[in-house]
Amino acid sequence: MNHIKAIAFDLYGTLFDVHSVIDQCEQRFPGRGREISTLWRQKQLEYTWLRSLMNRYVTFEQATEDALRYTCRHLKLDLNEETHAALCDAYLKLRPFPEVPETLAHLKARGLKLAVLSNGSPHSIASVVGHAGLRDSFDHLLSVDPVRIFKPHDRAYELAEGAFGLSRAAILFVSSNAWDATGARYFGFPTAWINRAGNTFDEMGQRPDWELSGLNGLSKLFDGA
Amino acid sequence: MNHIKAIAFDLYGTLFDVHSVIDQCEQRFPGRGREISTLWRQKQLEYTWLRSLMNRYVTFEQATEDALRYTCRHLKLDLNEETHAALCDAYLKLRPFPEVPETLAHLKARGLKLAVLSNGSPHSIASVVGHAGLRDSFDHLLSVDPVRIFKPHDRAYELAEGAFGLSRAAILFVSSNAWDATGARYFGFPTAWINRAGNTFDEMGQRPDWELSGLNGLSKLFDGA
Repeated sequence: MNHIKAIAFDLYGTLFDVHSVIDQCEQRFPGRGREISTLWRQKQLEYTWLRSLMNRYVTFEQATEDALRYTCRHLKLDLNEETHAALCDAYLKLRPFPEVPETLAHLKARGLKLAVLSNGSPHSIASVVGHAGLRDSFDHLLSVDPVRIFKPHDRAYELAEGAFGLSRAAILFVSSNAWDATGARYFGFPTAWINRAGNTFDEMGQRPDWELSGLNGLSKLFDGA
Repeated sequence: MNHIKAIAFDLYGTLFDVHSVIDQCEQRFPGRGREISTLWRQKQLEYTWLRSLMNRYVTFEQATEDALRYTCRHLKLDLNEETHAALCDAYLKLRPFPEVPETLAHLKARGLKLAVLSNGSPHSIASVVGHAGLRDSFDHLLSVDPVRIFKPHDRAYELAEGAFGLSRAAILFVSSNAWDATGARYFGFPTAWINRAGNTFDEMGQRPDWELSGLNGLSKLFDGA
């Protein structure tokens, strides 16, 4: 791994658990928390892809709000403005996966430069990372917002090259989202897919360079190098 | 409706029932037909959007094949090459919804120009339409293949303007896919959303001009004009 000088991490689902909003959904709609969270996440992703394709960018917060409105209309749940605001606010306070803080510290101690590269807006990224006390772990918090198109478009991945001042071959990209790992691989990043839940990798003509069951697998990867 | 001179129809899910493959799936994998069909369709759509966004176009048939491979791997179903070929072949022989032939004949008799505008390849479109005996209903069978990007990108919708030689305001676009109706509306087509199953329209900043419970609603729309 000596050629790797920096790591860019996806945020949602990779460092932070998007389904940590289940508890708040469950409080508001007892017995429906997981169902809401699953459809909400699916629609949130779809809206980022479709809006990128239609050249109708909105921020990730807006896509998240829109996806929640769809979800509650579709599930015939009464979503008042207060509940809507509270649930969207929960997305700014997601929990990191347990092994994340220690792994980041370990990688940083090895001299690697670290960044978040996320579809989230600068506000969302700063909120989520700051709420978990992880701001100092990163050299850069990179949002796609300045380029107004979401991953997996190349213009989003280019942001990491620019921020690190490194070529893509020297930047490891880490994501638990198979579509994101696929896009990163096409772009030319060496790519690690974090597969905590035994998911199935997508069939879009790429495979990750590494498949790891948690972020701590990265420490072993670099220690073994 | 006097300003409408032509109609462009989405194919999959709008004129033809994508879930008519359930029977074949059920034969091969008893008790799993609907589950396979649902995930297969979801992944097929995702792969068209994501590949468009990554600028890694493949034909709709290829995306369909890839989505079936994902689906069977994910559901831990053994997909041999013969079954794979047979199920993908079923996608070339989808059933039209019952009201489709009569409605197309009615609209054509009113002097409207009709086209299919589909993400499918020319081969897929010709197969599906021909198998149902509906080739003569259409003035144009338009595939996104020449522009190598899928709907809802603007370059796909532009194909209908070119083929009809009409401005977008004179072309009614008809789709049962909410994301497609949204893209068409942003493009500038008057748009009818066919909502046979009581679905929920997407929250991406557009609403259809008309919501109809079946294609025959179009006949009433034009007769009432």
